[in-house]
Amino acid sequence: MGRITERRRVLRIKDGHGTERADTLVGEEPLEIRVAGRAVAVTMRTPGDDFALAAGFLVSEGVLTRADEVARIAYCTGTAPDGSNNYNVVDVRPAAGLSLPDITLERLARNVYTTSSCGLCGKASLDAVRTTAPWPLPLTGGPRLTPALLAALPDRLRAAQRVFRSTGGLHAAALFTGEGDLLDVREDVGRHNAVDKVVGRALTRGDLPLSGTVLMVSGRASFELVQKAVMAGIPVLAAVSAPSSLAVDLAAESGLTLVGFLRGSSMNVYAGAERLQLPAEPPGGEGGAPGPAAATGASGSAGQRLAR
Amino acid sequence: MGRITERRRVLRIKDGHGTERADTLVGEEPLEIRVAGRAVAVTMRTPGDDFALAAGFLVSEGVLTRADEVARIAYCTGTAPDGSNNYNVVDVRPAAGLSLPDITLERLARNVYTTSSCGLCGKASLDAVRTTAPWPLPLTGGPRLTPALLAALPDRLRAAQRVFRSTGGLHAAALFTGEGDLLDVREDVGRHNAVDKVVGRALTRGDLPLSGTVLMVSGRASFELVQKAVMAGIPVLAAVSAPSSLAVDLAAESGLTLVGFLRGSSMNVYAGAERLQLPAEPPGGEGGAPGPAAATGASGSAGQRLAR
Repeated sequence: MGRITERRRVLRIKDGHGTERADTLVGEEPLEIRVAGRAVAVTMRTPGDDFALAAGFLVSEGVLTRADEVARIAYCTGTAPDGSNNYNVVDVRPAAGLSLPDITLERLARNVYTTSSCGLCGKASLDAVRTTAPWPLPLTGGPRLTPALLAALPDRLRAAQRVFRSTGGLHAAALFTGEGDLLDVREDVGRHNAVDKVVGRALTRGDLPLSGTVLMVSGRASFELVQKAVMAGIPVLAAVSAPSSLAVDLAAESGLTLVGFLRGSSMNVYAGAERLQLPAEPPGGEGGAPGPAAATGASGSAGQRLAR
Repeated sequence: MGRITERRRVLRIKDGHGTERADTLVGEEPLEIRVAGRAVAVTMRTPGDDFALAAGFLVSEGVLTRADEVARIAYCTGTAPDGSNNYNVVDVRPAAGLSLPDITLERLARNVYTTSSCGLCGKASLDAVRTTAPWPLPLTGGPRLTPALLAALPDRLRAAQRVFRSTGGLHAAALFTGEGDLLDVREDVGRHNAVDKVVGRALTRGDLPLSGTVLMVSGRASFELVQKAVMAGIPVLAAVSAPSSLAVDLAAESGLTLVGFLRGSSMNVYAGAERLQLPAEPPGGEGGAPGPAAATGASGSAGQRLAR
């Protein structure tokens, strides 16, 4: 069975001179996800939280929405070359009498990015998520976040990253309350796996939809990560780095607040700025700096109230 | 048709105050790859070099090894919702009379990580690459690289990254000669796509196997990236960040030199140190620092000669 970290010998070179030493690396092994015995996906992942990874993946794909839809998740025996259990194949058994949406390896390989009727394009990808998302993300009425609260999240994420500290080699996803308290953090060689693990653990706890939470990821924000947040009912996704154009479009269509380049006290809000609470401009202060009325978003409500 | 970069409005927040402005984002759109009209993969990619991406992907999967195996690569018409060409579906037509290895979407969705005979585990993943790799990577006899040459590559990669400068949002892969001269650089939202584009362009030029070259990637080194280097006959893979355990194991099995944490004058050599040329230790110098004889690797030849 694979491990979360593994040791290897490495030649460390500094200023042209080499030293051999032991190094800690992040583990990577394939995981096959089965539903009722049928393979639906293979992903390269860091071992650990495999049941959560499988469950969270199926939430992202629109297959699962509640814990009671699952009878049992188990490792398959007899999957290693010698017939033993290598803990790299997981089967998700649906609850008795329940027929889950039929998914095949072929459909998942194409992901939800295309349907037979609408061709293959970014717009079709957005439509596919919108039609399968089980929970709405209302832009108003929920908690509003201050920039100061968001700015504190990257340090809290890093402080919670155990494996990264020893390997420097993997992605993290952390779930926070609307008050910035850490609910969960998972690490993986694949950023999508880290998010699936967080979502799968929430499903098992009966916490879906994850209304009022903030998902923070260590890297960039791709279409796929926005999709995963939307499918889990998470209203705010914050990333350390840049989003793609399609990630921004999906966030805007879905009512997700998408924050990128979250570094120090600065950040970019690409969609859903209605959930942001900017301080009112002090009278006469800040020279010609634009006031909060310039905030993006249709409602124009961002920044109309004082920060908490 | 998608573009390499796209403009969106963004709310930029700094020290709690927001300013709306235009921002440049990296484009992301789905690409479906077909072989002789049959879909074999869908990937989210940055538009551009799509034919190279398709060709390079098929090199990685063991389907293509030479340019003359391909009759034509073309965008499929009639794939947009209105029946027009949306430039998101590419068909690779094999040369007349040639039957390419049969691949199906299902097999590729499972990747080469598993075969029916050997179950699903890291070892099986290594075996699958070893049995399909078309070119050996001899550890000795080829050019040897100095740490100084490797240390110069990250700056050269960054200098060549056009889109990253405008978006801060994507991965790059660059191919260098054994002397450190830039041969090619490609950028993409997906690091695997950037490598596929480099490899696909080399295939078209008739440059496979890419013996004597160095592939540099902007992020981490996963199993998948080592696989792509091996399948293209690239003997050296250098990454800015950490490799995974399975990436190191595949490199060691395949004879690939794997360099990670390439930053400033320091780097870690995880496999294939035989291709590294360390300076002889100056007599009496450096106190108790271990000499090059401590270099990792079976041959013990690393660092036995003077740097060029």
